[in-house]
Amino acid sequence: MPYFDAASAAPLHPVAREALLASLDEGWADPARLYREGRRARLLLDAAREAAAEAVGCRPDEVVFTPSGTQAVHSGVSGALAARRRVGRRLLHSAVEHSAVLHAAEVHTAAGGSCTELAVDRTGRVAAGDVAAALSPDTALVCLQSANHEVGTEQPVEEVAALCQEAGVPLLVDAAQSLPWGPVPGGWSLLAASAHKWGGPPGVGLLAVRKGTRFAPQGPRDEREAGRSPGFENLPAIVAAAASLRALRAGQETAGEAARLRKLVDRIRTRVPELVPDVEVVGHPVHRLPHLVTFSCLYVDGEALLHELDRAGFSVSSGSSCTSSTLTPSHVLRAMGVLSEGNVRVSLPYGTDGAEVERFLEVLPAVVRSVRERLGVPAAGRETVAATAGGGPEAAPAAAAEEPGEPAASAEPAGLVVDSLGKRCPLPVIELAKAILEVPVGGTVTVLADDEAARLDIPAWCAMREQEYAGERPAERGAAYVVRRRA
Amino acid sequence: MPYFDAASAAPLHPVAREALLASLDEGWADPARLYREGRRARLLLDAAREAAAEAVGCRPDEVVFTPSGTQAVHSGVSGALAARRRVGRRLLHSAVEHSAVLHAAEVHTAAGGSCTELAVDRTGRVAAGDVAAALSPDTALVCLQSANHEVGTEQPVEEVAALCQEAGVPLLVDAAQSLPWGPVPGGWSLLAASAHKWGGPPGVGLLAVRKGTRFAPQGPRDEREAGRSPGFENLPAIVAAAASLRALRAGQETAGEAARLRKLVDRIRTRVPELVPDVEVVGHPVHRLPHLVTFSCLYVDGEALLHELDRAGFSVSSGSSCTSSTLTPSHVLRAMGVLSEGNVRVSLPYGTDGAEVERFLEVLPAVVRSVRERLGVPAAGRETVAATAGGGPEAAPAAAAEEPGEPAASAEPAGLVVDSLGKRCPLPVIELAKAILEVPVGGTVTVLADDEAARLDIPAWCAMREQEYAGERPAERGAAYVVRRRA
Repeated sequence: MPYFDAASAAPLHPVAREALLASLDEGWADPARLYREGRRARLLLDAAREAAAEAVGCRPDEVVFTPSGTQAVHSGVSGALAARRRVGRRLLHSAVEHSAVLHAAEVHTAAGGSCTELAVDRTGRVAAGDVAAALSPDTALVCLQSANHEVGTEQPVEEVAALCQEAGVPLLVDAAQSLPWGPVPGGWSLLAASAHKWGGPPGVGLLAVRKGTRFAPQGPRDEREAGRSPGFENLPAIVAAAASLRALRAGQETAGEAARLRKLVDRIRTRVPELVPDVEVVGHPVHRLPHLVTFSCLYVDGEALLHELDRAGFSVSSGSSCTSSTLTPSHVLRAMGVLSEGNVRVSLPYGTDGAEVERFLEVLPAVVRSVRERLGVPAAGRETVAATAGGGPEAAPAAAAEEPGEPAASAEPAGLVVDSLGKRCPLPVIELAKAILEVPVGGTVTVLADDEAARLDIPAWCAMREQEYAGERPAERGAAYVVRRRA
Repeated sequence: MPYFDAASAAPLHPVAREALLASLDEGWADPARLYREGRRARLLLDAAREAAAEAVGCRPDEVVFTPSGTQAVHSGVSGALAARRRVGRRLLHSAVEHSAVLHAAEVHTAAGGSCTELAVDRTGRVAAGDVAAALSPDTALVCLQSANHEVGTEQPVEEVAALCQEAGVPLLVDAAQSLPWGPVPGGWSLLAASAHKWGGPPGVGLLAVRKGTRFAPQGPRDEREAGRSPGFENLPAIVAAAASLRALRAGQETAGEAARLRKLVDRIRTRVPELVPDVEVVGHPVHRLPHLVTFSCLYVDGEALLHELDRAGFSVSSGSSCTSSTLTPSHVLRAMGVLSEGNVRVSLPYGTDGAEVERFLEVLPAVVRSVRERLGVPAAGRETVAATAGGGPEAAPAAAAEEPGEPAASAEPAGLVVDSLGKRCPLPVIELAKAILEVPVGGTVTVLADDEAARLDIPAWCAMREQEYAGERPAERGAAYVVRRRA
């Protein structure tokens, strides 16, 4: 069955499996002990550290193993911030960082620190100039991922690293997604990664802290891993993780496979918008990971789409609000200002068969169509939405949705109010699409919605449909989103 | 080769190995995902949680998996303390807890909390009455291990749990050493354990928080493991850990094996003092783990002893100062007030062959003798020490070691001063043993020493040798330990 969610977790690399089995026999003892089993474990741990350091591009004594990429980020952020506490307490990070960075930032803020979020453009990319402008004398740390986990966009890490070096501020790079494809270039100070993204087993993260970077580990102290990661080393898994990373690097495997997967992804990027109406492919077209592509389908429920794809045999993930436990759309898509409904992330594992990608392209159009049909959206999109817009929106003066006595409201031409309160993504957008054709050009549709995704998806719909998004107004429940018909 | 350090880490249980291999294939995906690979992983995780909960004696939704026993303790202590912050900020813990508890306590103290250490008797046991007396209205949490990792002594956990329940104070039990042998009885509130102590792989700890126990996880938030342990679940290892624990419980394996190992340990406890002169077997003779025994050898360097035993094929550990990176004796031995030099911990793994134990008993006397000989201590102990005390201690009035002008000093009979400054354990004790026979009965030997172990081992030597320990006095460097000859 085609598994297209390598960005979540990859199946174990055969080399990692071999190494794991061998080190279950050879590396189960405590590497801190002086007897033969301990010394053997220590040798394995040292060799794994050397291999990992070589793949990362740093010195072995700069690398510690953590229990996960998440904990590598948490420890890296807290340790770097604590060490620079006297310099300042400002943390700069991009708006599209992994939640591990954002959660570490929350702890920093709760403890009295401050955070500045760097905006990204519609492709998900930070401008190096924005980083330069944001670097202040009290900046303790900058966090920038090498590539985004949801849309694949690569960040200008090398350029930002140079700016940070110039300013004397450490840069922490979350390289979880990119490390399988090569070392992170440039003068970063700290780097975090996660083995189960590169074909290693779960239970292993990696934190590199370059010499000369001030670092003060937080939390209870522990002698293991240079005092930077408490608890007994997960040795067999560490050995397997290092073996897998070395195999990716050594065998030229990466370069060839990256190019091959890039072609498959290119094909998806080109063909999906041709095959499926009303689709937005998101992420940077050039500066991106080789194996990952994300698109969003208008008028589609992300959870239903994932379910139907799973029934058809395809495992993918989504940043749609309905697929998250908090029912909010992905913060990445939100920061980019792109459509979040019907969102699909395809991330191809090593060795993905091109025929599977073709089959995905064959299956996708019918799957999207069936989900749309169930939501009352015919296949052809806008035109037919209008034709079937029967018992749709209630007609009411637009002012009903506005604050009483707001003088600006009286100047607006009368419009429709669509009450989508209590309805989940993509229903508010579907109802807007139906309603817009019922008002004259220049007229407005005001959508009342309390689903968080509406805040992102209504403006995104306007951009895709070339309608005018006239802004959001407070409402008794949720918010009122005003759209003016242009054509 | 006989591996006698199961209390550090045990080789992987065959059942755990099987389960690990199977779940590498079935359980590598993200259990939070909705597609088939994710659902399969979720089923494995749920089943592992149920098995672990059954073995612990709690509900599955009370158990989370952590990356290590150390992190289970750290999270358990910080989460329980934070949740009771308004009630009070006092943490009670025994003096012999694992360093994970002590390090969590340090963080608590550094953040403005307070800690009260409960003393233990010479067997390493806390008195329940002492806990009752120490429970104050501002007590937020009590930490008590079920059994000690260095000397095997079991604590009166059930009794203490009842006292805590009565006082409305949660009890956290570090069950890392005892869980392989059975569930912890009584009304504890939190329990921590570590899979690689029960034949599971490393990388898996367990934290149980019983319903009704207030708990506020600290550190960056994360959705996994009920918000109590951040990072991607180490699933194949979790499955293996649960399988191993279930196998220990189900197969009656534990009961039979515990009784068998207890007999082997009894034999070591009896035979070692018969075979080796000047040995102290430490730990409680009855309330103790079945597989663990610790003894200390007078006039022996622990590191050399471990090295010689390793050369003879035996892997054991030690709490002697010379085997620690900080050159301080084990805090457990110190809290018990027992000899720390020449310390050996033997902890037998499941399935230990009785013949290996016999061979250990055959080898040990010669090994100890050879280490003593190299230190200039003839085999027979005290009597012959005196005979060979040639170019030993310098004779000088005892007052030289005392503060100038201290009036009490003049009342003392003149004695010897032994300058052991700069000398490591066991040298100060060896020099004391040589010097004591050079002073008359009633006379004193004052040992100047700056090795931390002397503070523990000189009084312990006096107890073993029935000499009078007359106390410690300040000195320009280190301390001056005064011993009065009794016979």
